[in-house]
Amino acid sequence: MTCKFYLIKRKNILAENGHSWIFSNEIDGYDGEYTNGDIVESYTYDGKFLGKGYINDQSQIAIRLLTRDIDEEINRDFFKKKLNNAWEYRKKVIDTSSCRFVFGEADFLPGLIIDKFEDYYVIQSLALGIDKYKDIIVDLLVSDYGAKGIYERSDARVREKEGLALTKGFLTEPFNTMVQIIENGVKYYVDIADGQKTGFFLDQKENRKSIHKIVKDAEVLDCFTHTGSFALNAGIAGAKSVLGIDISEHAVEFCRKNAELNGLSHRVKFECHNAFDILREWSDEGKTYDVVILDPPAFTKSRDTIKSAKRGYKEINLRGIKLVKENGYLVTCSCSHFMNPELFKETISAAAKDAGRLLRQVEFRTQAPDHPILWTSDESYYLKFYIFQVI
Amino acid sequence: MTCKFYLIKRKNILAENGHSWIFSNEIDGYDGEYTNGDIVESYTYDGKFLGKGYINDQSQIAIRLLTRDIDEEINRDFFKKKLNNAWEYRKKVIDTSSCRFVFGEADFLPGLIIDKFEDYYVIQSLALGIDKYKDIIVDLLVSDYGAKGIYERSDARVREKEGLALTKGFLTEPFNTMVQIIENGVKYYVDIADGQKTGFFLDQKENRKSIHKIVKDAEVLDCFTHTGSFALNAGIAGAKSVLGIDISEHAVEFCRKNAELNGLSHRVKFECHNAFDILREWSDEGKTYDVVILDPPAFTKSRDTIKSAKRGYKEINLRGIKLVKENGYLVTCSCSHFMNPELFKETISAAAKDAGRLLRQVEFRTQAPDHPILWTSDESYYLKFYIFQVI
Repeated sequence: MTCKFYLIKRKNILAENGHSWIFSNEIDGYDGEYTNGDIVESYTYDGKFLGKGYINDQSQIAIRLLTRDIDEEINRDFFKKKLNNAWEYRKKVIDTSSCRFVFGEADFLPGLIIDKFEDYYVIQSLALGIDKYKDIIVDLLVSDYGAKGIYERSDARVREKEGLALTKGFLTEPFNTMVQIIENGVKYYVDIADGQKTGFFLDQKENRKSIHKIVKDAEVLDCFTHTGSFALNAGIAGAKSVLGIDISEHAVEFCRKNAELNGLSHRVKFECHNAFDILREWSDEGKTYDVVILDPPAFTKSRDTIKSAKRGYKEINLRGIKLVKENGYLVTCSCSHFMNPELFKETISAAAKDAGRLLRQVEFRTQAPDHPILWTSDESYYLKFYIFQVI
Repeated sequence: MTCKFYLIKRKNILAENGHSWIFSNEIDGYDGEYTNGDIVESYTYDGKFLGKGYINDQSQIAIRLLTRDIDEEINRDFFKKKLNNAWEYRKKVIDTSSCRFVFGEADFLPGLIIDKFEDYYVIQSLALGIDKYKDIIVDLLVSDYGAKGIYERSDARVREKEGLALTKGFLTEPFNTMVQIIENGVKYYVDIADGQKTGFFLDQKENRKSIHKIVKDAEVLDCFTHTGSFALNAGIAGAKSVLGIDISEHAVEFCRKNAELNGLSHRVKFECHNAFDILREWSDEGKTYDVVILDPPAFTKSRDTIKSAKRGYKEINLRGIKLVKENGYLVTCSCSHFMNPELFKETISAAAKDAGRLLRQVEFRTQAPDHPILWTSDESYYLKFYIFQVI
């Protein structure tokens, strides 16, 4: 018999409002037996059925709901249907040649990430309950979506919070893990085995495209360039010269290969620098650019470090603004969920004030639509992206 | 001698942070003589020069600053330069065949709106200080921008707050005021003499485009369709059928003409209904659509009526959400500055909860970049636009 969990009586039980998470401290007791990873049923304190999902008592998020329908079985058909919903949605809203196919909670498949790079797929499982269905998912990707190869990147540190080992490797026959993709007309090598996360940040696809209009004939500085994506978009959209900088020599080498792949090496250059140091140095020297792009990694991944993260965002935005010519452009973003929109706005505002410049907002965007924001799951909203004219 | 105004000592004097407004209750006194409409100088309580602008003691906004440079004269050259800045910016960020050319405070020309419809221009002056320079502006539009005709639409009620008469009419030789424009591939008649505001709402240009991806083969309902713009965008992007509704029979007639102009009359129909009544009726009947669009006029134009406006937004969003098929789409917006982003979010959220549906945010957008948001002028941010998948 399926084990039944009963929640305590409390306001703001997220799961009652459509979120898929049930926290361990929301559970009053249970009836039956379970092994971690099992599908269990959950009920409100007064016996109302909430949903079925997988349990892991090693995690603060004890249960993640997969369905609200008591009769729905969690099996191959279930995953087939969910993948189909996810795919139909993406076909409508985005170029699917390479895209995020499944975005966890926001696709009602908590703990599961699938990225598609042309015909190759990368799976990231963040929970024990998903690990158990990996074979079914792999099988469906091959049979229904023509996957030529699937790689697992379950090496995210967050798995440790679930008491799970980090793991990565082939889930199909081995293949060349240096995949080539094309996005907004820019070609990239994607290192799905050893690149960050699943190998490439697909969430900025349309934001990268949105800078095309402001970079023509411009001198562009792209900070925290990582795989060179904003820099290469500037290059392909007709920038006069582009300098991309990154703290990692390995990243810089990789960027140069991507520039070469696009025949842009003569206009798009990369250098290895610590952005914090070099932005200060160059702004002190009075250097200026037509367009400055700031796409830093998340400075905070928890509530505890927001304050120091805010200092970091303030500093790079202050320096970045100073480096923009009069009536030039600043492109700035934050991919940290905890740096919420209000806080990010406040931080940029303070930076502009300190720099003695006025900001005219050209555009505000969030993550691309293949990373949808489920309104009842706050943490699914993380990317804030602005283009400003700096007066 | 230029009259000098001195402000009281107070925190949060907007003009000190880059805003162009000085309120009458911020003024301590003045030295010299002035006539309303004159250019005056303004200084902080301790004698620091703030800027030069025009005065109107009939208005709560007593002074609107035009420049921060004490040596800059407000003359033809001044307006030539400002128009040039505004134009260079628009050429970068938007299709300029028809666009907002000057957006008042956000283009550092407080009180002045200029919309361009192909080679015809509509000027709206909202302040006495701008009325005085109308001849210069008209002259520049003809000489520098090749205006074939210019029409004045200074018939906005807000002029009454400035003690100014409402006025409209030709500022050049008369011309046919039914102008034809093209936007996102859709043709429109624009009635610049008698249409709302300047004749057409240019601020949704890119938002209209953003619905193209979700309407293919869909049954679409467009509420508060006005000139039929979202409906026609749905039509041209391949919707199976579109119904646009508006409370004004005159608007509906106009929409039909626009549909005809685009050869879309067979797929894009218009009916005259009160959206509040008919949305309730249809949702009670269980009618459904693949895509529902809500683009209401501003339900509030002041702080005083926010509460009832919120009720209005809640009601239409609740009804709108109910009319969307499972996994269909809701497009919803608010063009009221006072319905701020947080309040609008809260209202949509409450509507979804009442409707028992989940919202997945596909995209969030603001007004088009030819209506830039100047961060130090809060009121320049007014349009919030969402696309949701309704689960």
